[in-house]
Parts: sequence; C-alpha cells; structure tokens
Amino acid sequence: MTNYEIPTEQWAQVVEKSGGPAIYKKIPVQQPGPDEVLVNVKYSGVCHTDLHAMKGDWPLDTKLPLVGGHEGAGIVVAKGTLVDDSDLPLGSHVGIKWLNGSCLACSFCQQADEPLCQKALLSGYTVDGTFQQYAIAKAAHVARIPEGVDLDAVAPVLCAGITVYKGLKESGARPGQWVAIVGAGGGLGSMAIQYAKAMGLHTIAIDGGSVEKEESCKKLGAAAYVDFAKSKDLVADVKKATPDGLGPHAVLLLAVQEKPFQQATEYVRSRGSVVCIGLPAKAYLKAPVFDTVVRMITIKGSYVGNRQDTAEALDFYARGLIQVPYKTVGLSELQNVYTMMEEGKIVGRYVVDTSK
Amino acid sequence: MTNYEIPTEQWAQVVEKSGGPAIYKKIPVQQPGPDEVLVNVKYSGVCHTDLHAMKGDWPLDTKLPLVGGHEGAGIVVAKGTLVDDSDLPLGSHVGIKWLNGSCLACSFCQQADEPLCQKALLSGYTVDGTFQQYAIAKAAHVARIPEGVDLDAVAPVLCAGITVYKGLKESGARPGQWVAIVGAGGGLGSMAIQYAKAMGLHTIAIDGGSVEKEESCKKLGAAAYVDFAKSKDLVADVKKATPDGLGPHAVLLLAVQEKPFQQATEYVRSRGSVVCIGLPAKAYLKAPVFDTVVRMITIKGSYVGNRQDTAEALDFYARGLIQVPYKTVGLSELQNVYTMMEEGKIVGRYVVDTSK
Amino acid sequence: MTNYEIPTEQWAQVVEKSGGPAIYKKIPVQQPGPDEVLVNVKYSGVCHTDLHAMKGDWPLDTKLPLVGGHEGAGIVVAKGTLVDDSDLPLGSHVGIKWLNGSCLACSFCQQADEPLCQKALLSGYTVDGTFQQYAIAKAAHVARIPEGVDLDAVAPVLCAGITVYKGLKESGARPGQWVAIVGAGGGLGSMAIQYAKAMGLHTIAIDGGSVEKEESCKKLGAAAYVDFAKSKDLVADVKKATPDGLGPHAVLLLAVQEKPFQQATEYVRSRGSVVCIGLPAKAYLKAPVFDTVVRMITIKGSYVGNRQDTAEALDFYARGLIQVPYKTVGLSELQNVYTMMEEGKIVGRYVVDTSK
Amino acid sequence: MTNYEIPTEQWAQVVEKSGGPAIYKKIPVQQPGPDEVLVNVKYSGVCHTDLHAMKGDWPLDTKLPLVGGHEGAGIVVAKGTLVDDSDLPLGSHVGIKWLNGSCLACSFCQQADEPLCQKALLSGYTVDGTFQQYAIAKAAHVARIPEGVDLDAVAPVLCAGITVYKGLKESGARPGQWVAIVGAGGGLGSMAIQYAKAMGLHTIAIDGGSVEKEESCKKLGAAAYVDFAKSKDLVADVKKATPDGLGPHAVLLLAVQEKPFQQATEYVRSRGSVVCIGLPAKAYLKAPVFDTVVRMITIKGSYVGNRQDTAEALDFYARGLIQVPYKTVGLSELQNVYTMMEEGKIVGRYVVDTSK
Repeated sequence: MTNYEIPTEQWAQVVEKSGGPAIYKKIPVQQPGPDEVLVNVKYSGVCHTDLHAMKGDWPLDTKLPLVGGHEGAGIVVAKGTLVDDSDLPLGSHVGIKWLNGSCLACSFCQQADEPLCQKALLSGYTVDGTFQQYAIAKAAHVARIPEGVDLDAVAPVLCAGITVYKGLKESGARPGQWVAIVGAGGGLGSMAIQYAKAMGLHTIAIDGGSVEKEESCKKLGAAAYVDFAKSKDLVADVKKATPDGLGPHAVLLLAVQEKPFQQATEYVRSRGSVVCIGLPAKAYLKAPVFDTVVRMITIKGSYVGNRQDTAEALDFYARGLIQVPYKTVGLSELQNVYTMMEEGKIVGRYVVDTSK
Repeated sequence: MTNYEIPTEQWAQVVEKSGGPAIYKKIPVQQPGPDEVLVNVKYSGVCHTDLHAMKGDWPLDTKLPLVGGHEGAGIVVAKGTLVDDSDLPLGSHVGIKWLNGSCLACSFCQQADEPLCQKALLSGYTVDGTFQQYAIAKAAHVARIPEGVDLDAVAPVLCAGITVYKGLKESGARPGQWVAIVGAGGGLGSMAIQYAKAMGLHTIAIDGGSVEKEESCKKLGAAAYVDFAKSKDLVADVKKATPDGLGPHAVLLLAVQEKPFQQATEYVRSRGSVVCIGLPAKAYLKAPVFDTVVRMITIKGSYVGNRQDTAEALDFYARGLIQVPYKTVGLSELQNVYTMMEEGKIVGRYVVDTSK
Repeated sequence: MTNYEIPTEQWAQVVEKSGGPAIYKKIPVQQPGPDEVLVNVKYSGVCHTDLHAMKGDWPLDTKLPLVGGHEGAGIVVAKGTLVDDSDLPLGSHVGIKWLNGSCLACSFCQQADEPLCQKALLSGYTVDGTFQQYAIAKAAHVARIPEGVDLDAVAPVLCAGITVYKGLKESGARPGQWVAIVGAGGGLGSMAIQYAKAMGLHTIAIDGGSVEKEESCKKLGAAAYVDFAKSKDLVADVKKATPDGLGPHAVLLLAVQEKPFQQATEYVRSRGSVVCIGLPAKAYLKAPVFDTVVRMITIKGSYVGNRQDTAEALDFYARGLIQVPYKTVGLSELQNVYTMMEEGKIVGRYVVDTSK
Repeated sequence: MTNYEIPTEQWAQVVEKSGGPAIYKKIPVQQPGPDEVLVNVKYSGVCHTDLHAMKGDWPLDTKLPLVGGHEGAGIVVAKGTLVDDSDLPLGSHVGIKWLNGSCLACSFCQQADEPLCQKALLSGYTVDGTFQQYAIAKAAHVARIPEGVDLDAVAPVLCAGITVYKGLKESGARPGQWVAIVGAGGGLGSMAIQYAKAMGLHTIAIDGGSVEKEESCKKLGAAAYVDFAKSKDLVADVKKATPDGLGPHAVLLLAVQEKPFQQATEYVRSRGSVVCIGLPAKAYLKAPVFDTVVRMITIKGSYVGNRQDTAEALDFYARGLIQVPYKTVGLSELQNVYTMMEEGKIVGRYVVDTSK
C-alpha cells in the first residue's frame, strides 16, 4: 500500500448560484469522515442531470455552492477509521455515482433498496460531486472498479450503464425472451442493447429519424429495428418482430413521453412489463384500464441501481461486453460542454479529465 | 356413483337479441363433448357483467341467443369420454366460472395463465352460462367445490371471491404487510378485507359516504378506515394509517377511476404496487412519470384467477374465513334483479335458484 | 431526549477460559465507536448456544475472556458520532441479537444477506454479548423494539422467534398452504406454530412423548398433530393430515437428525421444500437422489434472520400474535441456569435480569 | 394442408418381455383419440433410459409389450376431433418427449408442473414410444418444433437438452453469475455449457480423465475447467475459478454420486444452490447440516422440463446456439446401439432413422 500526498487545494468547477454558470477555480480539499473515503477523481462523465443541477430547474433544491458531477472514476487516497483495509485499501480504483451514500439502516436500505433511502446523499446535487480533483464519498457506496478497467472509459457506465442494466433486471425478462427498447439509438439505448444481449435477451430496437441509427442498433446486437417515424402501425410492427407475433415480454422506455408509453402498453405481450426509466419533466403515464387489466400488464418505474446492480453492471463491462463511445476534454472546459448540451450538439458522451 | 336422469328440456333465461330482455323459457339440454361435463346448476350468482352481456354494451360481442351467468354451482350429471372418474366422478360438486374453458396448449395456458388464452371460452358471454338448469363446461376448468360447502352461498365466491384473492396474490404483499383497499365497503371490497386478513395482511379500508361502511369494514377485520368523502388530505391520511408512515405496501383498486388511481400511486410505499381490478368503461390510468420512477412504483392489472387461484380461494372459503351476504330468488325472477341492478337498488349479492 | 448517567463499572458474567465457568464480577463499561451504540441491557434470554460458547465445544473459537449472551433487550444510553438522532435517539428500546454487526459492504451485505457476511460479529461469541449491564452493538444492526413491548418478554424472540420466522419465509409456503413443524412441542416449535398461523399457514405439528405436547400444539393453532412415537407409518400419517393427501408444501426441521430429515423428504409434497434450522453436532442430511429429483424436492438451510426479518418478526410479536412462556432470574444466577440446561431440566425459556 | 396416407402396419422395435431384447417387427398403426395426434416419427434419439426400460431394472414397471423411445421428431399425420387446426395443423413438425401426456387438471398440472402429475404418461415406458414409424401422443404435450430445424439433429435435444436447460432455470442463477457443471465433458454436460453461455452465465466445467475434455469444454464456452482427477483440493480449485473466490452461485450435478454431491455443497457460494439432475441407482445425497444451515445452501432436484421449458429450450436450439454431435443408424439396428451402450462404447449421441 502506498501513502498518497494530498494537496490542501485543488481545481474544481463550482456553481455559486442556481442558474450557473460553473466557475473553474481552486477550492480546499476535504477530509473524509470515519465511514468515508477521499477519492482522487481522474475522470468524470457529464450527464444531462448535471446541467439540470446547475440550472436548478428540477423540483428538488441543490446544495449551494455546488460542485456537480456523479460519474467519477478515481483512486482512494485517504479513508476514515471505520473503512476496512481488506475491503478498500488505499489505491483502490473506485467510482463515485449518483448515490453517494445512504443511511444503511432504514427499511429500504435493509432490503437493498438504498436508492429509495429517504436520507440518500446525491453526488453533485445534495453533496459535492466529481467535477473536482478530490471528492468525498461514503465507503460502503463507492463502486468497486475491477482491475484493468480504464478510468476514463468506465466513467459513463457509472450512471447510464447501471441505470439501463437495472431496468433490464426490473423488467423480469429471462434469457431467450424479447425486450423492446424505446430510444434504442441514443446513449442509454445503445448500452441497453448491449446489456440485453449479454443477458441472453433478444431486442427490438425502436427509434427514428436516421438510417445510421438502424445500422448502429443492429451492429450492437438488436434482433430487429422498428422506425417509429416510418412505421404506419407501430403496435403491429413491434408485435410482428417477435416470432409468435404476441409482442415483446418487456419494454424499456428510455425516453418516456405520453405517446410511446401508451403504445408500449399496447404492443407488450400479455403479462409483460413496461419499465419506465426516462424522466421527462411533467410527463404522465397514461394507459387504458380495460386492456391493462384483462391482459395483466405491469407498468413499473426503475430508478438507479443499488450497490449490487452496480457491481454486476461493472462486471459485464469489465468482460468487454459493453462499448461506450466518448470524448475526453479538460475539466476546465466543462462550461463549453454544458453549452453544447443546451444547444443539442452532443452526440455520445463527454468525459472530463480533472488534470486539465 | 349414481346415474343421473337427465331431462331433454330445461328452464333457462335466454337473451335473444342484444339489449335484452332475458326471457324465461324452456330450451333443450345439451350433451357434453369428450372433454366436457354437464352440470346440473343449482344456484348462480348475478354479477354486473351479466347485465353488460345482456345489454351488449361492451366492446366484445356476445354469442346470440345467449344464456348468461358465470357464477354457477351445481353437480356433475354427465361427462365426456376423456373425463377421468378419479378426478371428476358423477355427483361431484363443481362451479362454472367466467373462464369456461381454454386451449390448455398455448404459451399462456402452458404457464398457468389460462385467463390470457386467446381461445378462452367465457361463460354467459361467448358460450352459454349458468342461468339454466343444465350447463356445459370444460372438465379441466370447472372449480372443484370442497365437500360440505353450500352451493348457494358459494356461488358469488366463484367470481368476486376469486378475483379479489387473485388481486391480493398479484400485489406481492407478504403476511404482516399493509394493503389499502379502495372501494372496501362494496361487495368485492368486503371479500377483499376478509381474504387479506386470512392471508396475514393488515388492511386500510378506503371508502366513503356512510357510517355503516366504516363499521362494517372494521368488523370484517380492517385495521384502519379512511373516508375519502371526509378526508381533507387522503394521501396523508392513508400513509398515516401505517405504523411507520411510509404508506401501504400495496393498493387494491376495486373501482378504478382516474382520481383514485392517481392518488394510489402517491400514497403507496416506495417499491409498492397498485393493482387495478375494476373495469370502468373508457377509464385511463394516469400517473406522474417522475414519482413513479424515483419511487419505483409498480402498477399492474389483475384479471380473473386461474384454476389454481380458484382452488385456493375456495379453500379459504371452505374453512369459514370468508362470509358473503346474499339473497336468493328464483331463476324466473332474473329480469327483476337486472332491473334493480340498473336502478342501483342492490346491496350485497343476488343468487338465483334454478329450480324456481 | 434524556442524558443518561453511565457508570464506569458494571456487573457481568465473564467466561475466562474455554470450558467455563461463567464468573459474576465487575468489569469496566466500554465506549461506543462512531457507528456503535451503548445499550443498557435490562434483560437477556439464555440459549443453548451460550452454553456451547462457554464450553468451547463448537468448531469456531470464541473470544476470551468472553461475556456471553445474544438475546438482550435494553435502552440506548450513548452513541457514536455517525448514529443519526432521527433513527436511534437516546432512550430507544433496542435488542442485541446474535448478529452484532456486519461489514455492510460485501456482496452478501449488499443483498441483505448480512448473516452470511464473512466479517460478521457474533454477540456473546466473537464480541462481548448481553450478560452484562452495558453492551456495545453496531447501530445499524440493533433490533428496533416497538413501543409498548416488555423488554423481558421480548428477549427470547430476538433469537428463537426471528429464526423460526426466517425459516417460514425461506420455506416459500404461501398463505393457505401447509407446513409440517418437526419438534413442534419445544421452545422453537411453539413459536413456529404461532408465526405460521399469523402468516395464514396451516400447520401439522410433529413431536412425541407426552399428551401435553399435542394439547399445547393444538391450543397454539396447529391444524393437526402427529406423534412420531406412536405413529406406525409417519410418512403416511403426515400426508394424510393434508386435505388432498399429497403432503405439506414445506417442512420446518427444528431438530435435524438423520431420520427425521430423510422422512421429511418423503412426506413433503412434490415441489415442496424441507427447511433445516436445527444444528445438531456432526449431523448429516441424507436423502435418496431418485425421489428428490423426480419429485423436485428442495432442501435448504436457514440460518438467523437479517435485519428486515428481525423487524418483521418483532412486528408480529408486538401485535400480540406470539406468546412465549419464560422465567426470570437474576444475572448473578446464570451459572445455575447453565447447570439446569446441561441436566436437561429446563422447560421453556430463561431470561436473566441484569439488575440482580 | 395435406392429407397423409397412413398405412395400417409399420416397422417397430418391440420389447416383449422385461429384460429384452428389442425385436424389429411389423405392428399395427394406432388411431389417435380425441385429444391425441398420430406422429410419423422420422428420427428418435437413444438414451440410457431406453436401456433401463428394456431391462426393467428400475423400480417402476414398464408396459409390456413395449415400444421404447422418448426423443422422437416427426410430422403430425392425423389428429383427434378436439385438436385445433390453428394450433396443430396436419404437417406440423413435432417432438414426442419423455412426458407423453398428463391430466392437465390436477394441482401440479394447474401450476405448470405437469412432470409431477401423478397420471403422467411416459413415452417408451408406460405408453409406447418413438421406436416405431407412427406414434401416438397427447396433442397438448407434443413439442412444437420451429420451422427450419432438422428433425434428426433436434432429436437428442428433446430429452437431454430440455433437461439441462430446466436444471439451469431451476438453479436460479442470473445472467453474469457463475455455474459449475459437474460432468461437463459428457453429452448432457456439453449441452449444459452451451445453454449456460446462451443464458449469459459463466461456467466452470468440472470433469476428469482426458485432455480432450478440457479442450472441448473450453471450445464450447466454459470460462474455466477443473480436472477432478488432477486437482489436489477440488473445493479450493473450484472456488478459485470465480473472480472473488467465493465459489459459483450454482452447481449442476449431471452425475450425482455421493462424493461430488458433498463437494458441491462445500464449494458452492453461500446462498447458492446445488441442482441434482443425474439419477444413479440407489445413490444418496449427503451433506453436513451445520454448513448447509449457516451458509444457507439450497439443494434441489430437477426433473424433466415442462411444456414451456421445452418451447424455450427448442428456441435456443433453433437460433443455432446449441450444437449436438450425433450419429444416425437405422431403427433396425437399435439392438446394436444398446449393446454398445452396455459396453460403454458410445461417445456422443445415437439417433435412429425409422425409415431403415
């Protein structure tokens, strides 16, 4: 084990007032509490949630001033007295994700549903996140990153990857069954296709707009592609894509809007489940009662994964089964990334390097 | 084993054209096919569905002319060549329920989801039902009524009882957990309270209007009662009724309307499930996406029980754990019952005696 | 919130060398670490495991010197800096059970299987237990005892009660199904009958020797009783006790010996499960492969409950559904209790009062 | 739809007395009952069970005279009045498997556990099987063989394939988890490795004796191989093969003998399951109680698949994910195959062609 030299000051992107901007400046390095680790963040993915946090346009207030970021990968450089060396020795590669910590004692934490803990700490939202060089996280919650995994490439998996993997688990679909992925051509969708394939599932990719999307989905392993922009009867086309014509056993809604949601309840197989993951502002689920009842459809929300889901999602990644395209820029350029994001100019995922 | 003398003609209530009325007249007795039994129906419950079938106001067409009825209890008096004596000897007490038969071979039937079979036969709807003295049913599907159970009293259990029991199973609630029952004061609701209690569940009865409903619900075993007509904050009041204030683990919606549905998704515990059973015409489920996702709520439809659910629901009844108030009138008076039903004058359940 | 005056010395029963005896003497009171609480133990149940710990005759070494005891009920009088006031304020009534603490971070803890944690701390075995006036326990692990529950009466529930409740959950038996309880007349058995009843299960009590056992089992709610000493064909008699003669859906083996185990695999229903709970030294499970395979029998071990099981088991107790007969003596008399235990003279459960 | 000309006589292998031999002779073609189909068997796999049936050395008596065989693939050429054209038109490609029929009405059949039906008909054992040109089977039970699948190649899948697939499902292992396969180098083992891979599972192949086995297992997709003949500490070696050293989540025992069984309970991960599939005569499961309880191990028997398992197993096969090496000989040569089987000279699977 090495001892790490820890500076007293570091570079960070700080949001000083709701609405932004993020300011690149030097701030002090914190000390970990007894059950915490200090992580030298090497890379951090940039997510739409970070933009919402800066702008303060979600119903839940952020901490202020705020260091954003919740897809951070780095190295444990200090730890509290309760953190066991056999579990997390200095030098461990870890990820700091959306769920920075939870109480580990409430009825949800007791049942491994720590994302539902009412005292959950949210990285880059209710506690400072990973857009800094040294971040604090609860030791029991940091993701253990397997050896040999690149810290830049894995960063986006820590949020998007875990989320789609959790959604697939929640769907209840078993190996050999069919899952429709709505929004398959986007960042989450392309990971969902790959996770589904690795789990032995057949996928129907649903998206629209460009020919590239179809090609890309099929290349990643989708068994079928339905273009919602071209289809004259989406419900019929999705059902037809399954060998017996009864529709997919599950649907993953990565971009919940009212119309795709209602269609999903129509083309999903009887007894199947529609899993909602996306979080469009002020959207509503809406489905006809009669059909939902007599076909025994299940509709469920799936939030971020718990710690076990995290470990499993990372294991699939470490085996080389999941590819995530990304671009790396310096942490100092974060505000530019936000600007591109607002202008809808981003394809794929951006990762910031905290050393620049 | 006895041999039964079977007449060639019998009394029945026949709907000759969509819209009704039901006409009390003599019709021929049918012969069972190889996999069928002929049941001498003694009593049959009358359900709102029967009224819909006569009026023809549901999207699905009925057979015509139609003998309605799907809560019939009687005695096997003849059977086809494939029906095993060790399984269903002549003289067996059986129930004919909504699901008269199914293909037993499709992927749904193979997985014990025969109510989802696309070739399902529906008693009193797509095949003649139990408002006659001798009815045909598929041997594999008739409910086996345990010895010592009264055939008049059990009739309403064959539809309403099985349906609420199935809903409770589908809710996933475990003994010791809490279930809210919306519409607890009605016919289905009062059975749901009793089944829930027998299953070790705690219930929060939700209904409104009269003081008698609260008393009746508590007498049947409800741990708490919330009056939606009096409550100023229904969501808060239902949550408060659970010891830890986190809300019930499941909600049974016996009368799905948009408002109760949306409220249910708000007061149900995180990770809990909202089970829809009622079938109001043209109603829609509607729930905010954000809350459903971050609290990981499950919404599911529950239709009628399968054969195993039927056997289990009858077993609870046979042990004396479920009481169902009912009034008996002659089969000849069925049209009067329909008239009272249309005028909203029925409290409790009516059962017709086919001998009168 | 009150502040408690905490003495520097206290009375305890200390085992100074493997083999015993336990010596009643004054020892220092410890300080809780950041994630721990100090509990003023009021009462502690005495279990056979405590005798094994003193004698040191199990394969796993105990700490030495050792304060035994793992069924302690008391009051939180001090706590570490990480323990949240909203969760465990001073004055909280809590139980210290066999599982004193676990790492809360390994793959087992992450999946709510903390009893399988390889770093688990065992009260009265690998860490000092509850045969003292002030005991230390991990805050996340102490059982939250509901208000209004007597601390002496609840003590035995903290080990025996949770264990049988967990076993019933592990059995997979659903409300309305049948469970055979082998050793139903003993301490664990009598609790198992009551938990099973509260969970909506029907029980077949199996035990032998005295008429009182049959009476007692039936009074507690057993639907049937089979005396293994009198039965000429135990397998047939147990099967006959179920209405359809196919045998119980599950079997709880509270005293696993080879013969009862093998019989259990014979009378359990096809697809049923045999749950082993008792821990006789050097015993082996033994079952014929052929029958186990073609009847798809499941055999599983069930250890102590996790934290959620604990909360649930205590909730059933707090509702008055579980009665546990016990006798109270002073902590100073513990060695006498051990002597009676070794001589097989104990009926029911002993609880020690730490104030005497 | 075609009409098939059906001869009155056909070639068959008939066992006339217990002990054999099988005699190749002409016998009459039977007529299907109302719920049956007549299948023109094209190919039939030969299994050890067929040898046991001929020799009559199992505890359960066979029908006599007996036509053996339970891995038959062929074409529906006639059917009873109850068999629906939309389900099984003449010309359908179907498989006749071990479970020829079941009552479809008992509590096991109702729950999709038809292999546990007490009135189950067993092909080539209690009813005539597939070592003839025209065999009878219950329509609800014949395996639906997807289009484009070769009838000779699929024959062995109908028994061995379904059995190992069912065992993997029963193990409860999820995609990404580890399964040890004991007897991985044999016929069942090589299919198990392929099914496991297609289901997203990692496998540890365990077998012994030859270098070829290791190569073959790895080529089929095993992540690790442990040679029980060479290993000095099998338990340690199997655990070491999993990344975290905690052992596989499940074990599939394809050849249950007492020693491998006891070892499996030692190296399986805590909370894991050991699934027994093989049926050695008079063998016993034997496991230490203590370890099974405190590690919460599950031991379960897995018999043949139900109809849904059959459809799923065939679907994996139809997608080209499962390769089964086999040799084809004429039906007339069956007795030679039995002789080679008795002499232990068979590697891989033999399939008989009923046209020769």
